Amino acid sequence: MKARVFVTLKPSVFDPQGKTIADALHSLGYRDVQDVRQGKYFEMDLAAASADEARRRVSEMADRLLANPVIESYRVEVEAAEP
Amino acid sequence: MKARVFVTLKPSVFDPQGKTIADALHSLGYRDVQDVRQGKYFEMDLAAASADEARRRVSEMADRLLANPVIESYRVEVEAAEP
Repeated sequence: MKARVFVTLKPSVFDPQGKTIADALHSLGYRDVQDVRQGKYFEMDLAAASADEARRRVSEMADRLLANPVIESYRVEVEAAEP
Repeated sequence: MKARVFVTLKPSVFDPQGKTIADALHSLGYRDVQDVRQGKYFEMDLAAASADEARRRVSEMADRLLANPVIESYRVEVEAAEP
């Protein structure tokens, strides 16, 4: 089963990396960019009996390893394997 | 308008960071994880006349700054702002 995890800084946390990217885009001429936030993205293959089971396992992994729950939030998407 | 960019290493490129995360998950007891690939994730606010225009601009930004087209591929999602 394929799962995707998106980890982003919480909205209240300052994102200097995103700010730097926004500044770089401005200096390349993309003045229409108002804000950039950078996050992390994980694609995972795992063996699980069901999509619900996979979602539960992956959320646990995100809490324990992939995200820092103090400053980051995450979203999990599970995609059933093609038969 | 909100846009999201997902940047991942091309499948043929070795991902040592993803391998390290997979090993760490195994040692935490998640033996059901077969593979992990790490990528980057960008959330962007930008002013654009239409979703197509935003998609075109953001793809150009990804080509020029956000991704390294030699080893990475990217996917752009545009979400129209709520009225």
